Amino acid sequence: MTRSDEPKVSRRRVLAGAASLGGAALAGTNRTLAGDPKNLPPNVPGWSRVLGDGVAVRPYGKPSKFESHVIRRDVQWLTASRESSVSFTPLHALDGIITPNGLAFERHHGGIAEIDPEDYRLVVHGLVDKPLMLTLADLKRYPRQNRIYFLECAANSGMEWRGAQLNGCQYTHGMVHCVEYTGVPLRMLLEEAGLKTSASWLLAEGADSAAMSRSLPLAKALDDCLVAYRMNGEMLRPEQGYPVRLVVPGWEGNVWVKWLRRIKVGDAPWHAREETSKYTDLLADGRARRFTFVMDAKSVITSPSPQAPLAAKGFTVISGLAWSGRGRIARVDVSLDGGRNWRAARLDGLVLDKAVTRFYAETAWNGEELLLQSRAIDETGYVQPTKAELRKVRGQNSIYHNNGIQTWHVLRNGEVENVEVS
Amino acid sequence: MTRSDEPKVSRRRVLAGAASLGGAALAGTNRTLAGDPKNLPPNVPGWSRVLGDGVAVRPYGKPSKFESHVIRRDVQWLTASRESSVSFTPLHALDGIITPNGLAFERHHGGIAEIDPEDYRLVVHGLVDKPLMLTLADLKRYPRQNRIYFLECAANSGMEWRGAQLNGCQYTHGMVHCVEYTGVPLRMLLEEAGLKTSASWLLAEGADSAAMSRSLPLAKALDDCLVAYRMNGEMLRPEQGYPVRLVVPGWEGNVWVKWLRRIKVGDAPWHAREETSKYTDLLADGRARRFTFVMDAKSVITSPSPQAPLAAKGFTVISGLAWSGRGRIARVDVSLDGGRNWRAARLDGLVLDKAVTRFYAETAWNGEELLLQSRAIDETGYVQPTKAELRKVRGQNSIYHNNGIQTWHVLRNGEVENVEVS
Repeated sequence: MTRSDEPKVSRRRVLAGAASLGGAALAGTNRTLAGDPKNLPPNVPGWSRVLGDGVAVRPYGKPSKFESHVIRRDVQWLTASRESSVSFTPLHALDGIITPNGLAFERHHGGIAEIDPEDYRLVVHGLVDKPLMLTLADLKRYPRQNRIYFLECAANSGMEWRGAQLNGCQYTHGMVHCVEYTGVPLRMLLEEAGLKTSASWLLAEGADSAAMSRSLPLAKALDDCLVAYRMNGEMLRPEQGYPVRLVVPGWEGNVWVKWLRRIKVGDAPWHAREETSKYTDLLADGRARRFTFVMDAKSVITSPSPQAPLAAKGFTVISGLAWSGRGRIARVDVSLDGGRNWRAARLDGLVLDKAVTRFYAETAWNGEELLLQSRAIDETGYVQPTKAELRKVRGQNSIYHNNGIQTWHVLRNGEVENVEVS
Repeated sequence: MTRSDEPKVSRRRVLAGAASLGGAALAGTNRTLAGDPKNLPPNVPGWSRVLGDGVAVRPYGKPSKFESHVIRRDVQWLTASRESSVSFTPLHALDGIITPNGLAFERHHGGIAEIDPEDYRLVVHGLVDKPLMLTLADLKRYPRQNRIYFLECAANSGMEWRGAQLNGCQYTHGMVHCVEYTGVPLRMLLEEAGLKTSASWLLAEGADSAAMSRSLPLAKALDDCLVAYRMNGEMLRPEQGYPVRLVVPGWEGNVWVKWLRRIKVGDAPWHAREETSKYTDLLADGRARRFTFVMDAKSVITSPSPQAPLAAKGFTVISGLAWSGRGRIARVDVSLDGGRNWRAARLDGLVLDKAVTRFYAETAWNGEELLLQSRAIDETGYVQPTKAELRKVRGQNSIYHNNGIQTWHVLRNGEVENVEVS
């Protein structure tokens, strides 16, 4: 756990940036930065003249009405029904590393199970000495951990295997979010149940109408998995598995089973639907990639992007996210010319294990066309590949695990398009 | 920036705890922990048999209907009107360190200003070479930082100066929250405006109907203050200053001016209402403590507490928060007997500069009465004082900056009361 840089170092860098603001960089803006003194202070606007709403008028708060466009969105033609579909995090309209709970993307296989926490039970059974049946109150009496992790759907950017399809970072990359989870180490429950010596896999099954289930190797379960009931401090949202979900850090979202109702311990994988028919990729030689759990390092520029075009020339902040299922992000490079030239981005704030990292690259934009790219390198030395490199290895039939480098084409008018460069 | 302990060390500790679960500790629970195998798996409940709601049915999500009691609450008799009042964070119902935006406490002096972001302006003027008038779009073009900080109202626990008054951690300590902010270093704006050599203080003024204003020493402004427009990734909530507020890490919440409309640079404090009549404490000798900006180290056990009683004997997690305006939390001690005996709590997850830190103490409760206390020690060595020690120095007339040790009296039936021990 480290900040990317010490505060004092950070401040020097920031000031180096600021120095350029006074010069040519900000001169190009459309708005007046240095106001005419006779306008100061500005005329008192209406909101300074009337009493506003008081406290607790909204006991559970919500965003300003001026932010009503910042919502999760689905793509109607993508799936046959909304009950087995996905909505996307509006990455283009967010910053930092924490995703607000109300905007965390959803993926359901049989709609949102609406579970009464009083009637909730979690069963741990199979190759154990003593099966457990736990209530939510029971779970809350076990020692807890709080950890910030990203969760990415294996199908994130999946459409893009066929070339640039969807316009907007929300749609190309919005099946990822990052929150603080509170939960019980799964290892603790398994050790209380007592593992038989033959135990080597487990099945996690949801209480939704799809009974979504996945096999997990025991080693991962004993490593860092959490049986979680909170996100960002409050109880899980219904669409995120209320009251209990599995947290499987760094691994594909599908195995983070929501509405978790049982964990069965066994000695082999179950070959469930979601690890055979789905969440498996067909390679060019006819073999299938299966149990591809780990999400490899990936990054995307969230702004500018098609839903967040450039409004004015001059000093511009390029903002993006990088993450890796194998650990921390070590470096992110940014290119303005489609990958010919690269420079290191500034990693900002917290750089955490298996969480998203925010990066920035500040630049002066003079209205020229750009081909924006970002490239993540994680602490294992893994370098995010180009889409061409990925296809060379994975063939033409993949759906999942597309972590190829994204390209945004910035036009002269500031609009941005999803493109692919060879 | 450190985790409180390395993951592997953490796991060992956790397992040490788990081992005791199998023994006497959990035997006392009211619920069946080790279920009868013939009940496994449980009968399929209704929610597994019907399709649930699909994606994006709630484009901006909200908590489960079963969590409708977890809300901000005010105390009607505490203030004359809701437009100049406070609502409290439900600390007893949260965990981890991140406060969800919808539950972050509010304090208003003239209600919530409802600002159209298109018409928003920030003015920087006074003892500067070049006054600035910035739009929100301008601000978003400056280099950004993301930092997680606590914000505590100086009046948090203020009623408790007179002895134990309010029942419930939400009311005694709920004027604190902790989120990730995104903003521009204030230093950057001040250096662009160009500070005159006589500059030494600044005035921050809000655009609310109270025109809430406070004086700030220039040194703090140049150190770590942010002109922030986001919290937990999304734009600030209206009640937190949408679209722009000041972030003054570690200092009393009143100076984190919301709906920020101007920053005037001067050479002396302004002696505004909120730093003379209010946010000032009268000492026993007739002198007043003024400009008491820093929030000293403090902690509170959030659960169990009056709103979160103990439901069953046996293994119990004591959960709490600690924070310091002077840096990181170094240690938290917990006492079960009103301060006679202390043991170190387990600091969990991230331990950040000027953010809240989550601590836990696991214990077996056999139905005996407890006098629960927690005591924070920060990295400067400062130790959270008892209320008696505080009164000795501050006298009987204080309202603000009560960081005395809180005591919860756990009764034999598991109910919890706010008490004070001498």
